[in-house]
Amino acid sequence: MAVYTQLGAETLAEIIAEFDVGTLISAKGIAEGVSNSNWLIETESPDGEVTLFILTMYEQRTDLSDLPFFLGLLDYLAENGCPVPRTIHDRDNKPFRFHENKALALIEFLPGISVTHPTPAQVHAVGSALAQIHRAAAGFGESRANGLGLSGWRALADECGADGLAAIDPGLAGFVERELAFLEEHWPADLPRSVIHADLFPDNVLMLGDKVSGLIDFYFACTDITAYDVAVTHAAWCFSSDGASFDPALSRALLSGYEDLRPLSEKERAALPILGRGASMRFLMTRAYDWMNTPADAMVTRKDPMAFARRLEFYSDPVNAVCFNHDDNS
Amino acid sequence: MAVYTQLGAETLAEIIAEFDVGTLISAKGIAEGVSNSNWLIETESPDGEVTLFILTMYEQRTDLSDLPFFLGLLDYLAENGCPVPRTIHDRDNKPFRFHENKALALIEFLPGISVTHPTPAQVHAVGSALAQIHRAAAGFGESRANGLGLSGWRALADECGADGLAAIDPGLAGFVERELAFLEEHWPADLPRSVIHADLFPDNVLMLGDKVSGLIDFYFACTDITAYDVAVTHAAWCFSSDGASFDPALSRALLSGYEDLRPLSEKERAALPILGRGASMRFLMTRAYDWMNTPADAMVTRKDPMAFARRLEFYSDPVNAVCFNHDDNS
Repeated sequence: MAVYTQLGAETLAEIIAEFDVGTLISAKGIAEGVSNSNWLIETESPDGEVTLFILTMYEQRTDLSDLPFFLGLLDYLAENGCPVPRTIHDRDNKPFRFHENKALALIEFLPGISVTHPTPAQVHAVGSALAQIHRAAAGFGESRANGLGLSGWRALADECGADGLAAIDPGLAGFVERELAFLEEHWPADLPRSVIHADLFPDNVLMLGDKVSGLIDFYFACTDITAYDVAVTHAAWCFSSDGASFDPALSRALLSGYEDLRPLSEKERAALPILGRGASMRFLMTRAYDWMNTPADAMVTRKDPMAFARRLEFYSDPVNAVCFNHDDNS
Repeated sequence: MAVYTQLGAETLAEIIAEFDVGTLISAKGIAEGVSNSNWLIETESPDGEVTLFILTMYEQRTDLSDLPFFLGLLDYLAENGCPVPRTIHDRDNKPFRFHENKALALIEFLPGISVTHPTPAQVHAVGSALAQIHRAAAGFGESRANGLGLSGWRALADECGADGLAAIDPGLAGFVERELAFLEEHWPADLPRSVIHADLFPDNVLMLGDKVSGLIDFYFACTDITAYDVAVTHAAWCFSSDGASFDPALSRALLSGYEDLRPLSEKERAALPILGRGASMRFLMTRAYDWMNTPADAMVTRKDPMAFARRLEFYSDPVNAVCFNHDDNS
């Protein structure tokens, strides 16, 4: 959450002039996203119309070879009626440009706010929006491997090391090892795959009342098990943030909203608990890694890895499988 | 430059509902200001009109007893035609509210961008805008002492200590002591006083082309020598940022723009070099203090104190007094 690169007003005005969007009249660095610099840009057309955009400068964490996938996906989904921001192409019709060897893209601004205490009606809408992108993305020709899948979790666990994990919580190293072994043995291989968002937390959903006005931050989007995205979204929306309490009403709303547009097969439904364990492992591992690599006094808020260890425990308890039964969600 | 406080969407919506400005439809934390949290807020009226505001939450560095002065001054200046943002009063007509014991104010959003490489025409406009607020503020009944005046510089030097200053630059402690002694002996006592901005750096001026669209960040505003504000603005705009090079064309433009609206007396003009020394000392001292109290690896960019030691040397060299002569600026 930062602006990593400073751009002067004259530089910003020159950058904006490369797009057919009017004259720059305002630019504010915004505290959004964890790894890129973002500005909220206001432009004015010759006839006085004012429009907002997001200008994103991609910093180290984004692999530039992935940008055509991410930005092409946004364009494809927007064209197919999904609530995602379009990429504004420059005067040469390129979806991103370079400034001093850093890539930047001008992105449509969508209104809406990210809820922190979602209601069932809101989570229902999120489920439907997720199904909508899964359906629409079926026609998108590109694919991208998931760098944070099964082998990625193992690699992160190795980088953290048993001592590193134990420093977070005494039982964490053993817990992670047992869970990784389980996931490696039982991870489903035959479920439908598609382009997935893979990070649909409340931060990445803009809402106006009970409606989804925008899905944003597709920088983890990849090709993977479609129902895994349902599980990620379930882990992201249906628990208290510390993972200590599960909200069955939100869970029912999410699945019902999703199935309004894309019913899950019996096989997908049955796999949701293990997919939830995988989703929890993914965020447990990235949070553990970030925890170990962020000084305690840094200005960035460290997110507690254990919040996802608790979710993982929830998904691995057979008693909770009932939450994913069709009958329970009718 | 940060958002120190996290406010959830629901909390932000409740806060905005206390003002008669329509419904919250967007809120982005913005990286502006050094000591407060700021959000760029978008609201929609029942007939669909979208308006932008800045929501400011005052953090530790702002003395709440000063807020009525700061916000009352904005209202007074805006009413009197100055390009400053109005404070939006809440439904009880209060200029600021409290949320969990922190004060917050909703402020008009003004378009414009802060230039980094100003032209003489832009600096001329800045001079005129400064004179405009000096003239308009004459009718503002309130006053506030300048906590960063002569005695404030001495106090900061004492807090830094000779060793602390020497760690920044080997000659700095002796330089500061000699300059403080000079300023304490020769600081002018009989120049006209008024409300001054006291921090009119390019960051705090919004421009559209050559026009000033907004003067912002009045949180150092106080009652002090009017021409001292000219000197602060001169030190802020007429040098390269490292203080190593002075631009006479910008200097002439600033003074000429100022004098278009408020001619300086001979006495004020003659005092500009010593006022410039004082202005340089003020930023040298606050930067030295911040330098010593900010870890080198913090995410906040430390500003080099020596950039103002160089300005101070410029102002104290008698050869440069010619820059402030009337004849040189005609």
